[in-house]
Amino acid sequence: MAHYDLIISNGTVATADQVRQCDIAVKDGLIAALGTDLGSADRTIDATGKIVVPGGIDSHVHISQPSGDGIVMADDFESGTLSAVCGGTTTILPFALQQKGQSLRDVVKAYHALADGKCHADVSFHLIVSDPTPQVLGQDLPALVADGYTSFKVFMTYEGLKLNDREILETMDVARETGALVMVHCENEDAIRFLIDRHVARGDVEPRHHASTRPAIAEREATHRAISLAEIIETPVVIVHVSNRQAMDEIARARSRGRPVVGETCPQYLVLTADDLDKTNWEGAKFVCSPPPRDTDSQIACWEGIEGGVFDLFSSDHCPFRYDDEAGKLNARGRTDFRWIPNGIPGVETRLPILFSEGVSKGRISLERFVALGSTNHAKTYGLYPQKGQIAEGSDADLVIWDPELERPISQERLHHGADYTPYEGLMIKGWPVEVILRGTQVVAGGEPTGAAPGGRHLARGKSALVTEQERRA
Amino acid sequence: MAHYDLIISNGTVATADQVRQCDIAVKDGLIAALGTDLGSADRTIDATGKIVVPGGIDSHVHISQPSGDGIVMADDFESGTLSAVCGGTTTILPFALQQKGQSLRDVVKAYHALADGKCHADVSFHLIVSDPTPQVLGQDLPALVADGYTSFKVFMTYEGLKLNDREILETMDVARETGALVMVHCENEDAIRFLIDRHVARGDVEPRHHASTRPAIAEREATHRAISLAEIIETPVVIVHVSNRQAMDEIARARSRGRPVVGETCPQYLVLTADDLDKTNWEGAKFVCSPPPRDTDSQIACWEGIEGGVFDLFSSDHCPFRYDDEAGKLNARGRTDFRWIPNGIPGVETRLPILFSEGVSKGRISLERFVALGSTNHAKTYGLYPQKGQIAEGSDADLVIWDPELERPISQERLHHGADYTPYEGLMIKGWPVEVILRGTQVVAGGEPTGAAPGGRHLARGKSALVTEQERRA
Amino acid sequence: MAHYDLIISNGTVATADQVRQCDIAVKDGLIAALGTDLGSADRTIDATGKIVVPGGIDSHVHISQPSGDGIVMADDFESGTLSAVCGGTTTILPFALQQKGQSLRDVVKAYHALADGKCHADVSFHLIVSDPTPQVLGQDLPALVADGYTSFKVFMTYEGLKLNDREILETMDVARETGALVMVHCENEDAIRFLIDRHVARGDVEPRHHASTRPAIAEREATHRAISLAEIIETPVVIVHVSNRQAMDEIARARSRGRPVVGETCPQYLVLTADDLDKTNWEGAKFVCSPPPRDTDSQIACWEGIEGGVFDLFSSDHCPFRYDDEAGKLNARGRTDFRWIPNGIPGVETRLPILFSEGVSKGRISLERFVALGSTNHAKTYGLYPQKGQIAEGSDADLVIWDPELERPISQERLHHGADYTPYEGLMIKGWPVEVILRGTQVVAGGEPTGAAPGGRHLARGKSALVTEQERRA
Amino acid sequence: MAHYDLIISNGTVATADQVRQCDIAVKDGLIAALGTDLGSADRTIDATGKIVVPGGIDSHVHISQPSGDGIVMADDFESGTLSAVCGGTTTILPFALQQKGQSLRDVVKAYHALADGKCHADVSFHLIVSDPTPQVLGQDLPALVADGYTSFKVFMTYEGLKLNDREILETMDVARETGALVMVHCENEDAIRFLIDRHVARGDVEPRHHASTRPAIAEREATHRAISLAEIIETPVVIVHVSNRQAMDEIARARSRGRPVVGETCPQYLVLTADDLDKTNWEGAKFVCSPPPRDTDSQIACWEGIEGGVFDLFSSDHCPFRYDDEAGKLNARGRTDFRWIPNGIPGVETRLPILFSEGVSKGRISLERFVALGSTNHAKTYGLYPQKGQIAEGSDADLVIWDPELERPISQERLHHGADYTPYEGLMIKGWPVEVILRGTQVVAGGEPTGAAPGGRHLARGKSALVTEQERRA
Repeated sequence: MAHYDLIISNGTVATADQVRQCDIAVKDGLIAALGTDLGSADRTIDATGKIVVPGGIDSHVHISQPSGDGIVMADDFESGTLSAVCGGTTTILPFALQQKGQSLRDVVKAYHALADGKCHADVSFHLIVSDPTPQVLGQDLPALVADGYTSFKVFMTYEGLKLNDREILETMDVARETGALVMVHCENEDAIRFLIDRHVARGDVEPRHHASTRPAIAEREATHRAISLAEIIETPVVIVHVSNRQAMDEIARARSRGRPVVGETCPQYLVLTADDLDKTNWEGAKFVCSPPPRDTDSQIACWEGIEGGVFDLFSSDHCPFRYDDEAGKLNARGRTDFRWIPNGIPGVETRLPILFSEGVSKGRISLERFVALGSTNHAKTYGLYPQKGQIAEGSDADLVIWDPELERPISQERLHHGADYTPYEGLMIKGWPVEVILRGTQVVAGGEPTGAAPGGRHLARGKSALVTEQERRA
Repeated sequence: MAHYDLIISNGTVATADQVRQCDIAVKDGLIAALGTDLGSADRTIDATGKIVVPGGIDSHVHISQPSGDGIVMADDFESGTLSAVCGGTTTILPFALQQKGQSLRDVVKAYHALADGKCHADVSFHLIVSDPTPQVLGQDLPALVADGYTSFKVFMTYEGLKLNDREILETMDVARETGALVMVHCENEDAIRFLIDRHVARGDVEPRHHASTRPAIAEREATHRAISLAEIIETPVVIVHVSNRQAMDEIARARSRGRPVVGETCPQYLVLTADDLDKTNWEGAKFVCSPPPRDTDSQIACWEGIEGGVFDLFSSDHCPFRYDDEAGKLNARGRTDFRWIPNGIPGVETRLPILFSEGVSKGRISLERFVALGSTNHAKTYGLYPQKGQIAEGSDADLVIWDPELERPISQERLHHGADYTPYEGLMIKGWPVEVILRGTQVVAGGEPTGAAPGGRHLARGKSALVTEQERRA
Repeated sequence: MAHYDLIISNGTVATADQVRQCDIAVKDGLIAALGTDLGSADRTIDATGKIVVPGGIDSHVHISQPSGDGIVMADDFESGTLSAVCGGTTTILPFALQQKGQSLRDVVKAYHALADGKCHADVSFHLIVSDPTPQVLGQDLPALVADGYTSFKVFMTYEGLKLNDREILETMDVARETGALVMVHCENEDAIRFLIDRHVARGDVEPRHHASTRPAIAEREATHRAISLAEIIETPVVIVHVSNRQAMDEIARARSRGRPVVGETCPQYLVLTADDLDKTNWEGAKFVCSPPPRDTDSQIACWEGIEGGVFDLFSSDHCPFRYDDEAGKLNARGRTDFRWIPNGIPGVETRLPILFSEGVSKGRISLERFVALGSTNHAKTYGLYPQKGQIAEGSDADLVIWDPELERPISQERLHHGADYTPYEGLMIKGWPVEVILRGTQVVAGGEPTGAAPGGRHLARGKSALVTEQERRA
Repeated sequence: MAHYDLIISNGTVATADQVRQCDIAVKDGLIAALGTDLGSADRTIDATGKIVVPGGIDSHVHISQPSGDGIVMADDFESGTLSAVCGGTTTILPFALQQKGQSLRDVVKAYHALADGKCHADVSFHLIVSDPTPQVLGQDLPALVADGYTSFKVFMTYEGLKLNDREILETMDVARETGALVMVHCENEDAIRFLIDRHVARGDVEPRHHASTRPAIAEREATHRAISLAEIIETPVVIVHVSNRQAMDEIARARSRGRPVVGETCPQYLVLTADDLDKTNWEGAKFVCSPPPRDTDSQIACWEGIEGGVFDLFSSDHCPFRYDDEAGKLNARGRTDFRWIPNGIPGVETRLPILFSEGVSKGRISLERFVALGSTNHAKTYGLYPQKGQIAEGSDADLVIWDPELERPISQERLHHGADYTPYEGLMIKGWPVEVILRGTQVVAGGEPTGAAPGGRHLARGKSALVTEQERRA
């Protein structure tokens, strides 16, 4: 009779593939066995009436990124990863952001210096390429891909970050040559800049004008362009944070042409709208992010994409700033002009509870789809599968136990991030994560951190399943 | 250290979800463990260099169906299931066909009498409803669904089988009420009959005119109509044996409206065309089936559907008749007029080798997709999952070992079905099943039957995953 | 200097093609000249500030059709055509309806007996084929087409009228052979009948259930089917009274495949909704017609079709019954069960005022498009162009002068039809026809009938422009 | 009885609207009357057996444009307009091209200096905006629109001409404010430049690589982008020289969203393919134009667009260079590297014969559609209607008589342009223009120039019908 470190017994075990009743045995940080009568263990958690899923993976997270102008992100790697695990997410993929003129290898080193040894979740960096010099394209990226940094993000908007089409093509070309995967933030910068200038000229500078200067057309246009550029290079592409049906349709069209395009959406597009940016007393600033939340029709569209398959990834785009803070949303200029409100909202901790409550508890999606969207598909898309995103023998013992009946609103005072507010304040959630295990170590118990020392590791990643598939067909 | 009945070692184990290197232990007909160093076993099969997959499931098979007029199907349950297992398929879903005036319960009993105790594969019957009387709709179907016959097929073509729209609606309504799943053969009977009469009037009665009287428009029309009727009833529907892009587009459109519609295609739409029906010496009769094979553009479209997701199911539509036989294709009338050539071709044994060779070996699809299309999705769609279609602890030990390098053309003389020809004669296949295990018992070894006694069982089925999903959302 | 019978001077002359300022000279019932300083005339009408357009053509009108069961249509040819001219329509295309067992030639004779010598507008009959016997298909239809009855209508719904797909194909085939054009009423009878039975079973028999038993899906399904059947025959087809976006999409899809499909919509789909059928005191019966008015989204869709081109024809589907009448809507059975409320609403007089007011006055469409939709396209589609539907030398002098500033609500007491109500009561209209000339004779002056003797003629028609185009391409 | 300058008698008179038999009387350069027995005339042309149409309008013509580097266009305004009238085109819309740093008003003056008094056809300039400075946007464009230059073209490709998205938005915004219409050359410059560099790096610099460096995706992408930018500004847009189905689909999609988008195609996309660029001995250079001709599928697609309505305009994109000339295609660098072959081909004279022969004579399009595509729609789109593009009283007497039976191949030696070759050499044409009248003066007789002095005038234009429509709806 085998003996294990931990057995989780009597739970409903859900993976992307199936839901079953069984016990899970953990040994040496790995899942050792599934079944019944597995044997003895040093410790047992009784999951009767609970749901056990693979640890969540959030593949779109911004932490400790510099924003210039005295603006400071509200999370460092310690608070950000603690917040993540408290929300049922045991692996995050934050960005290592290159700024113009910086060496990409130095950038990666700098982010490691910020993160290593401080994380409560496992971490693996995407690279943001903002300065695709010959050195970057010819040397740094290939070397970094070889080291396991197998995904790059490029921006079609934001001064200082935006690449032009030529630069995107060249970056995609490196991805194709090295077997990496490109993510694209799709909004047409020129259109936005034109609309901002027109708004400013007539004095329209309130938070709600952040939304009206970034219309769905600008997102649809850039989405089609990004897909077209990837089509020229013949490389897969991830369209991140899709907010509306028009952009979704571009993804669906590309797929019907046989193009490998992955869509991602986020909680803000399911439960917020542009009306939230119109809250009085400049409170709309709390909801300023890009693309902006749209309208109720767009929420319906995004749900259809979640149910019907346009979206494979559900991420937070966690990008936290404090609200009532000179280094945050209400900085001196930001409190009178939307152009200076830092873009982004916190969400790494609330992502999965929102998807569970609005999706599973309300009957929109199955438990299997919840796991796929919140964990498994991220692992497959970004080269971490089946080490992550699966409950199977040999996979990392990243396990989250959810109480599907626990009902409680989202409240800033119960969250663990560094922000001083949550855009989801008061949203009633049915279904919360209560126990969280990272590679065999319990990091959350009864819904609160156990106080375990930061045990998160950096993960070198393999090739995306999409890249493997593309290479197979080529 | 555990002891098992059988261990398959060193194989590449492929499921719909992942491909990994591991051993598989079998005990009491079930999969007992996966991993390495599993323990000892009465018997070991070394699968080095081979691929181990879940036993194939063919959810579209006709066996021992009466055709009237002295025509006899070329397979009974013994030969048909032997042929299946030799082709890597361990579960088949044949039809219990009601003819006008028959009691559906009696029909089921009659098919059981033909099948029970004679099968080399596991078997579970779909019901064909051709006479939806109040007794059938109100009594027989609900009782049969409760007994595990959880899927019905209806026809929109064929005199004697065709239901009108009202009858289809009522049958779908029973499905909705009882939690069953409806499959539809979609071709517009009136259009076909009109075209046949026009052809006959001008003396066009050769095998090739079977194709020209059943155009893609007639299939597209009926596909849209079947989907619309299911939309009115709000029930999922399976569109079987889809042959061309127009019909595929109807499925894709319905899905984009959020409708639960499943598409199935078959080998004949991938490797045959209408030109085959134009072979000299009335050999075209060998390829007469409905819908007919189309053209090379349609083959490309069907491959796109297989790769891109319009199709979840890949079945054989095995419907075997002998060619040179008074009870078969060349019966007295059939040898001078296509109208009397029995419709259907054999294929239960060649289905998976064709998909493996044309799909996996030629790089069109991954091993995971091969397993999904050939096995797992059938189990999910028809209420057999995870007992069937999966390699996981507790699932039935239906296992097939493929030799991916074995190259050999399809040849009638090596097949085990009752037909005297194969429509795929000479097609070169790379990748053949070599060892087949049904619930722990080896039924094929070295590519040939082991001579084991017929051990196939009838399977009572649960609800389709589509039905469960629909009920959850309602 | 030429001398004419009549000159209309100083008007804004609008055709489907252009809007210009010019005078129009009429001689011997024809348009003799356009321009300025045309010469002298027996009589001059000063159209300063007014708009002069070709006489309206309403190609979808039911008059004096038998309905069985003691129900009587509210208009005979005298009242119906008087109502037409008072609404700016100088040509109507009513139906000669064959009932099962009737000789089609006798039917045409009978309608002529009812109409000849009694009409205030020109008239030309479509044929409704409800019993396509060999005699009808082989003899009567070809002879009638040769006589100038160049369009047939078939029904996919209504017991006693509905043709099955085979009959539709055969009727279309005759149209193709003879150069006639087929119109189709598209609703799936079986689906409607199924839903009606379900409604009746639960006691849902109020007027509003007329709408819920005829859903948009049933219309979309039949629309696609009608188009598919026409596609098999390779003949053009008119889809009449389209009510919603789903059906419109089928037309647009067919056109993008290059199929000659014409769409028609009607006032009831622009300004009524299913809510009107829910009026208290059984007043909903006033709005019972098929397809039923839908919702505000459908109204928007229909406007888009009018503006964007899915619709070429705007007709009334005038089918008048008295409301408070034993021979009308509130017959003994109809006042307790929607199944017995005769289907149809009056509208031949209000059609163009509604299109002018809601379309032109509200800026949705141009004057040119108003003329095209209300007159010219009917003439082209049904073989009357350029005799009708045009203001050009040699065309019939059917002219209507509109006062674009005259504002007055629609009111039963000012209408001239035989019904005792209008479904548009109270709808404010800006823009009314004030002077109407039929082949040179003024039939309406100052908005009221002049009392001229019935001068309408029957028009033998040529081939539809669509048929000519199809034949050219074949 | 009236007396006229000219009567064209007994012809088949075709307009965009109808085809009829009638005579046409001309007085003082205008059409004075249509009909029969019109009266006497100084001169009569008997058009028995011939077809009389409105003078062709070619709205896409390049003449005397500077190309830099010693390259000289092969036509000046005298030869270009003589070539035009010999091909049945009596009005051309050439471009006044601003180069970086130039004053737009000076540019217009310079082109007038080149053209005024030298033209055999009427002429009206579009403006090409390549340097949208505040002066240009704020002063010059509004003033020029007021003067009747009511259309601008912008480029998304070509170094020195390409505008970025911001500049396009600002130019469109001026168009919207001033009531002008924007035309866009849609190809993604960055993608093309990337592909060129890749080709050059591997030594692929032959004429055929001009085609492979400008793929359909680059055109589709830019087409969608141009439409999206116009959608943001809410202004109509013309997509010029569309070459393939992908770009066409973008236009169709936009229209189905209700966007006013006009599509134009050209002869080169109907009768040439990329294979022509692969002719031996560098002869492929004769076919170098942008977008490049594609493949036979694209030809079919373009025909469908012509028949089905995606295209409203059929232009030549006449852009003539001599082939065997240091100032032309075979300049020193151009004869070894496609990058230096000047882009463009001659076609103003062959445009309508190709459309007539391939379209009308081969039965693809009607005479009405021929007139619409070749003349009337240009007049409506660019503010010249009904002065041009119509045969009606008061319109300019620009009339072309076609001999539909005259059969003769296209041959350089019979053309009148300044180029030393035609890309259509040897193409058999059935149907040639034989008599051409410009505002009452015969300029071509028996297919050859009459030697009349250059009588073409410059035309100040009004607003596009699309602009008027857009303003009405706003």
